[in-house]
Amino acid sequence: MRANRLIPFWLRNYRRQWLLSDLTAALVSGMLLVPQGLAYALLAGLPPHVGLYASLIPLIAYAAFGSSSAMSVGPAAVLSLMTVSALSPLAAIGSPEYIGAAVVLTLLSGLFLFAMGLFKLGALSNLLSHPVINGFVSGAAALIIVGQLPALLGVEADGETASVKLLHVLEHLPQAHLPTMVFGVATAAILIFSRIWLPMLLFRLGAPKQLARLGARLMPMLLVLCAIGLVHWLALSDELDIVGDIPAGLPEIVIPDWNGHLVFQLLLPALIIALLTFVESLSIAQALAARRGERLNADGELLGLGAANITSGLSGGLPVAGSFSRTAVNAEAGAVSPLAGVLAALLMIPVLLYLTGLFSDLPLTVLAAIIIVAAASLFDFRGFIHNWRYDRTDGIAMLCTFIGVLLFGVEVGIALGIGLSFATLIWRSSRPHIAVVGRVPGTEHFRNVLRHDVETQEEILFLRIDESLFFSNISAVEDRLLSELKRHPATRELVLILSSVSRIDGTALERLHQINKDLRNRNIRLHLSEVKGPVLDRLSRSKLLEKLTGRIFLSSYIAELALRHGDEGEPIPEEPA
Amino acid sequence: MRANRLIPFWLRNYRRQWLLSDLTAALVSGMLLVPQGLAYALLAGLPPHVGLYASLIPLIAYAAFGSSSAMSVGPAAVLSLMTVSALSPLAAIGSPEYIGAAVVLTLLSGLFLFAMGLFKLGALSNLLSHPVINGFVSGAAALIIVGQLPALLGVEADGETASVKLLHVLEHLPQAHLPTMVFGVATAAILIFSRIWLPMLLFRLGAPKQLARLGARLMPMLLVLCAIGLVHWLALSDELDIVGDIPAGLPEIVIPDWNGHLVFQLLLPALIIALLTFVESLSIAQALAARRGERLNADGELLGLGAANITSGLSGGLPVAGSFSRTAVNAEAGAVSPLAGVLAALLMIPVLLYLTGLFSDLPLTVLAAIIIVAAASLFDFRGFIHNWRYDRTDGIAMLCTFIGVLLFGVEVGIALGIGLSFATLIWRSSRPHIAVVGRVPGTEHFRNVLRHDVETQEEILFLRIDESLFFSNISAVEDRLLSELKRHPATRELVLILSSVSRIDGTALERLHQINKDLRNRNIRLHLSEVKGPVLDRLSRSKLLEKLTGRIFLSSYIAELALRHGDEGEPIPEEPA
Repeated sequence: MRANRLIPFWLRNYRRQWLLSDLTAALVSGMLLVPQGLAYALLAGLPPHVGLYASLIPLIAYAAFGSSSAMSVGPAAVLSLMTVSALSPLAAIGSPEYIGAAVVLTLLSGLFLFAMGLFKLGALSNLLSHPVINGFVSGAAALIIVGQLPALLGVEADGETASVKLLHVLEHLPQAHLPTMVFGVATAAILIFSRIWLPMLLFRLGAPKQLARLGARLMPMLLVLCAIGLVHWLALSDELDIVGDIPAGLPEIVIPDWNGHLVFQLLLPALIIALLTFVESLSIAQALAARRGERLNADGELLGLGAANITSGLSGGLPVAGSFSRTAVNAEAGAVSPLAGVLAALLMIPVLLYLTGLFSDLPLTVLAAIIIVAAASLFDFRGFIHNWRYDRTDGIAMLCTFIGVLLFGVEVGIALGIGLSFATLIWRSSRPHIAVVGRVPGTEHFRNVLRHDVETQEEILFLRIDESLFFSNISAVEDRLLSELKRHPATRELVLILSSVSRIDGTALERLHQINKDLRNRNIRLHLSEVKGPVLDRLSRSKLLEKLTGRIFLSSYIAELALRHGDEGEPIPEEPA
Repeated sequence: MRANRLIPFWLRNYRRQWLLSDLTAALVSGMLLVPQGLAYALLAGLPPHVGLYASLIPLIAYAAFGSSSAMSVGPAAVLSLMTVSALSPLAAIGSPEYIGAAVVLTLLSGLFLFAMGLFKLGALSNLLSHPVINGFVSGAAALIIVGQLPALLGVEADGETASVKLLHVLEHLPQAHLPTMVFGVATAAILIFSRIWLPMLLFRLGAPKQLARLGARLMPMLLVLCAIGLVHWLALSDELDIVGDIPAGLPEIVIPDWNGHLVFQLLLPALIIALLTFVESLSIAQALAARRGERLNADGELLGLGAANITSGLSGGLPVAGSFSRTAVNAEAGAVSPLAGVLAALLMIPVLLYLTGLFSDLPLTVLAAIIIVAAASLFDFRGFIHNWRYDRTDGIAMLCTFIGVLLFGVEVGIALGIGLSFATLIWRSSRPHIAVVGRVPGTEHFRNVLRHDVETQEEILFLRIDESLFFSNISAVEDRLLSELKRHPATRELVLILSSVSRIDGTALERLHQINKDLRNRNIRLHLSEVKGPVLDRLSRSKLLEKLTGRIFLSSYIAELALRHGDEGEPIPEEPA
């Protein structure tokens, strides 16, 4: 029984007939893991074989805890960018110190993820709103693309910021290295073609729809093999920058250099990487689970991603997460369970043992093209337009995060985005919507006088407050209340409809006391209606209910009935305390 | 006409019969201004005469814009503490650099206040919740008291933090300077007595109630004069630390030393001082206006306080604000208009011209006693107990601010408080209250099933969401929704009651789409009821309304009627778009 609980949930219920599907999916997604692993390791400033190592044990570790049926965990472009951005101020890219720091960074972010899973802190991911994530990913994609242009075109270009680098690239374009450029641009063009038109072409040529899509997705591996063939055949290995020797053999466990100062410096970047890993992976897994009608265990995902990053740290140091593109391929190829991921990882073993020599002739420009095309697909123009239309403040938060990433880098960009999200939240709640309402004739319902044909009473003013009352908005509420009383000078009874008020904090309570007192001096009674249970509980601990000049009504309709007829003596149902 | 607009509002409508009242009030509050000015200038680390200068032109400048009928503007204990805390890291207390920096600090905070008035940014004061202000003021009061103990008791005591200083004082108590201690403790004892028992005593002796209270309030000035007399008569001026020479004559305009680096260093402290000045002064003025049934113009107050601090900066550099104690005295003495403040300021002219010699023999321990007793009255125990009972989070914010001020000083303390206020706001809105509701039998009202005897339907689940939907809480809402569906497995129709939802942001909208899709797969229809106008406007810009499996109902009652009878064809009043 106890031993049984150590076996992952999905494995306990595994059915034999799933094996073929999972194996097919593993073969297909494994074909993507190789070029992406090499490319993203280079992007992170690490030796290419680290990308292959990160595609082996971490995938198995994820499957031990994770529950998503088809999410493909492994190296990811945005995380690689964050790695290089966090580490390059600390050590020269590619130096032993750099690689050591990458190990610590990945381990730390894995530990953060695992701890978040243990303590069930999945809710931390709510710190990031979708617009901020979209803005961040789009900004990171732009940085990645500009960063890869020199490698793609064979030009020299330096520059602190993306725009300076882009200018340098354009300036030096006439000195571009022609063979590099031809290889790179051709690869990029074929990849773009195969993303956009190839599925349709294959479909028209008679391939089943699913196969057509899959075929197009496998283009990166095909191009990698073609490029290696061409370099070998045309003897271009001296002419082009190539991957170079990749050590054959399985990864060995790296003993991390736990240096207190380094750990301290990497805490914040590791936390940000952990948060992004979780948010990105979870949104992929959730979308998938929804499509398949499965339920996802967020804390299990956290443990899985944590284990994956801890093992990735110990086997080389490239952060891993759920990858959008590989997950799509994995799902389309028919993955039924995390076993597909495990099998894809096992495929990495023969690659590492026997095929590393093959990849040494791979031109870097081909990897740059793969990175660029993958990054370009991360742009979310439609999401931006949608956000801008639906909610201007969301659009602005997205734009600011995007620009922040471009101008100040990934860390500042994401901090800006989170700050903006919360500033928006606070700003909105400090400008509450307040409506003068009247009764819809013939019903018991009260609606905004500006939007509906409603009946109002001259002496009774109904105000609906559409926000909880807090220190940050009580002044605005008071101002509005006084200006409405000025507009309705005959008012003798003011009814505040608190149907939307879920909390009243101490500051707001004090001010309500004051308002009640002021209105008494003006011979206006203050009533409350539709007070929610929790609010009433709280209010009954204060003196407001005692001092209130008016009454508390179950509904606005009852309030109107009572106040219009002045039936002070009639028993009216009030909210039980 | 135009010239008329330059004359302050209160002066245009001034009635001659008010003059006597205002003059009386001016005489009385002027009697308080002298000792408080001297004391708070010393507290701020400035020469005592600066406190008198700050009680002259700034009061007139305030009256040119301000509208409060009896608020007494002038030096204030908390601001003096903030001044010394901001400036002492930059220059030695009392040095010319220190005094120059005080000028710049006061000017800057005046400029901030004036600019906030011009741009109508009075709402900025909403950054500070009452509990945070209470905690801050109480903490500052404790710092002030501990800081004045050495001067009061005539002991030497250093120490970075308040607790260390207090320990030093206690340690060195046996070496206290006896005459200083006698003067100081006696003054403090008489002041405390005159605050608590003297009004009652005078009243019992036959004085009218108001006069009795006023008499007690004038005790500081009386004690100052007695102390000066005693020092003179007993020739104690060599024995005791005394105020020393005060230059006679009116203040001259100080040319501030605008040094870019200094200005930059003082920006943040000046902003905090400006915010606190405004919040403190406004709450005093508001309380007063409420009692007198007057309306206050917050932007005018900002301009007035700004002008007061700009002129105070130019005439010496002690920040000024509305003072709680002096305002109470001013109001009790019958002040009817800001003219009382102007007249009190004019009284400062003969003091500065002819009476400065008188105050040179004033023992510092007497001023320390005045400061300590004034600071002690700033403690707000009752407010703390009240906050703690009414709203635990408010109580915690107050306590943390208080402790923060004590341990880390005024700036860190207030930053902590503001941060905590907002963290609370965010934390609360990320844990929305959600209730399963049912219909109160015989009515159209829906109430929480846990609190009321209500009717529910097996196939229809009504959930009321008591918070706007945001990125920070949509996960919590989704989790609750799924767990309620698990608890009510027969549910075929889910009605979300959005009566409390004032906004749905982009992240929440996306998730609602997803929830709608997931529920469709489970054969559950999703309906919305009581959607507010602004929310519906926003939603109609998205595709949710198209894709919604269920409908939008004007009220939950209509929803129940329609869904229970399955009257799909019947015309049901829906919310107009």
